[in-house]
Amino acid sequence: MATPSADFSGWVAERRDHIEGALDQLLPRAVEPARLHEAMRYAVLGGGKRIRALLAFAAGEVTGAEVQDVVPAAAAVELMHAYSLVHDDLPCMDDDILRRGRPTCHVAFDEATALLVGDSLQSLAFQVLSQPGVAGPGVRLEMLHQLALAAGSRGMAGGQAMDLAATGRDLSLPELEMMHIHKTGALIRAAVGLGARCAAQPEPSTLGALDRFAKTAGLAFQVIDDVLDAGGDTATLGKTAGKDASQGKLTYVSMMGLARAREFAAELRLRAVTALDPLGVKARRLHQLLDLIVERSY
Amino acid sequence: MATPSADFSGWVAERRDHIEGALDQLLPRAVEPARLHEAMRYAVLGGGKRIRALLAFAAGEVTGAEVQDVVPAAAAVELMHAYSLVHDDLPCMDDDILRRGRPTCHVAFDEATALLVGDSLQSLAFQVLSQPGVAGPGVRLEMLHQLALAAGSRGMAGGQAMDLAATGRDLSLPELEMMHIHKTGALIRAAVGLGARCAAQPEPSTLGALDRFAKTAGLAFQVIDDVLDAGGDTATLGKTAGKDASQGKLTYVSMMGLARAREFAAELRLRAVTALDPLGVKARRLHQLLDLIVERSY
Repeated sequence: MATPSADFSGWVAERRDHIEGALDQLLPRAVEPARLHEAMRYAVLGGGKRIRALLAFAAGEVTGAEVQDVVPAAAAVELMHAYSLVHDDLPCMDDDILRRGRPTCHVAFDEATALLVGDSLQSLAFQVLSQPGVAGPGVRLEMLHQLALAAGSRGMAGGQAMDLAATGRDLSLPELEMMHIHKTGALIRAAVGLGARCAAQPEPSTLGALDRFAKTAGLAFQVIDDVLDAGGDTATLGKTAGKDASQGKLTYVSMMGLARAREFAAELRLRAVTALDPLGVKARRLHQLLDLIVERSY
Repeated sequence: MATPSADFSGWVAERRDHIEGALDQLLPRAVEPARLHEAMRYAVLGGGKRIRALLAFAAGEVTGAEVQDVVPAAAAVELMHAYSLVHDDLPCMDDDILRRGRPTCHVAFDEATALLVGDSLQSLAFQVLSQPGVAGPGVRLEMLHQLALAAGSRGMAGGQAMDLAATGRDLSLPELEMMHIHKTGALIRAAVGLGARCAAQPEPSTLGALDRFAKTAGLAFQVIDDVLDAGGDTATLGKTAGKDASQGKLTYVSMMGLARAREFAAELRLRAVTALDPLGVKARRLHQLLDLIVERSY
């Protein structure tokens, strides 16, 4: 993994502090029903990488949004992501026991609680984004609509359904891509789109370039996930390694081989960089995040 | 059950047509992922009573909203309700096999699909309410916020968690009430509140009276549910009868006895009627719906 510049590390650390603080504030503590709230905190505050929040902050820098104005959008996207992980780990889905190096939510609590944790985190994402004070009402409605579309049956949840349907079956490469565009890509696009809309008057051409970047970066993220699952170890990943192969899931690695999947990730990175070209130096954090995504080891 | 007036029956039938048509339009058909969308349609279009939608329409009549302007709010509330039923029926929750006289979603499809159906219906509720064209943006944000609060850990999902925590334990009557205020009451209040806000400029005092009505009517709804579960039969209810007792759940009937629970429902009805007093004749549909709720047999 490349060593990020000290400047970038500082930027990431500062924004991670912002988002952790915001999430800590948003999640009720010692409020009834206490066990549900405890489990929600466990699921969200478990030390994620916050890639989606960082993408929202970086997109906000492109359009000139202040950090504090991006926080609700970044928090909403992270809450949505956290909900999806809790539900994906359930026995009826991926049946996983390890997440971020700790027992998954349904193992640490119980299945019924984990179900309600996911349900409640989704509601909380919309609650955060609809509360007074974030951007103008018209823009906020657009953001809410984008997030709802990205989360639903034609976005993230739909991608999960495609993944279920694909297990043990043959897929073409375009079908695999379609699945990932939904499953992980939709929320990454929403992270970038929401972050960018936190500024006063983002240019439509800027939003377009950012969306092209996000589409490609999202796919790169998934290809790297497959590479890491095939080549990583459980301790480094903080989740069960080699799971895709053992579950008979088609991945970029199983379809292309490890070397070609790595090359494909590099190609996607180049396409994402090209999408950022018209945005100039304002997009440097997105460049750096892209490097982080492609060069990460967990 | 009292025979509703022909006038009221016509009103109900017309609004049920509106909401069924809207839900049919909103739920994708033959769109990928096809099985998920088929399961979503199965869960929502399975012939519910649409009490929450009817409450939204009736509240809209009080504030002077047009029927078509209330449709998105009514649809959002019904989608949220449908999601909660699908998740509540899952094996890790109530583990029920019958709903609205048909196999529950996870029985007709599978558990993973039912999980994603619930997740996707919640997203769709927010998608519907955030789409362009419903009321002004400021009011719509308020509506979205109210719905998100009503659905989440301090509303419906929180009530479900309280219910889980209470099974097999002793509860006081105030604790039982607190559980129901969350579990079913929050969404009924949201239905009334959202419907009322679909008008141009609802009076704060009107919104206050409607909310007082909704709180009490929601509790009456639950008490009657308990009475029906204790005294009804599976064929009439369309869901498994006697389930509360067999699962060791505390209900108004188990705590008060059947006769006293019926009396309590009648007292709540009276309180709800009193809340409507200041609204005069504009509230007649809410009166009639209250009668329908308290006198229903399923």
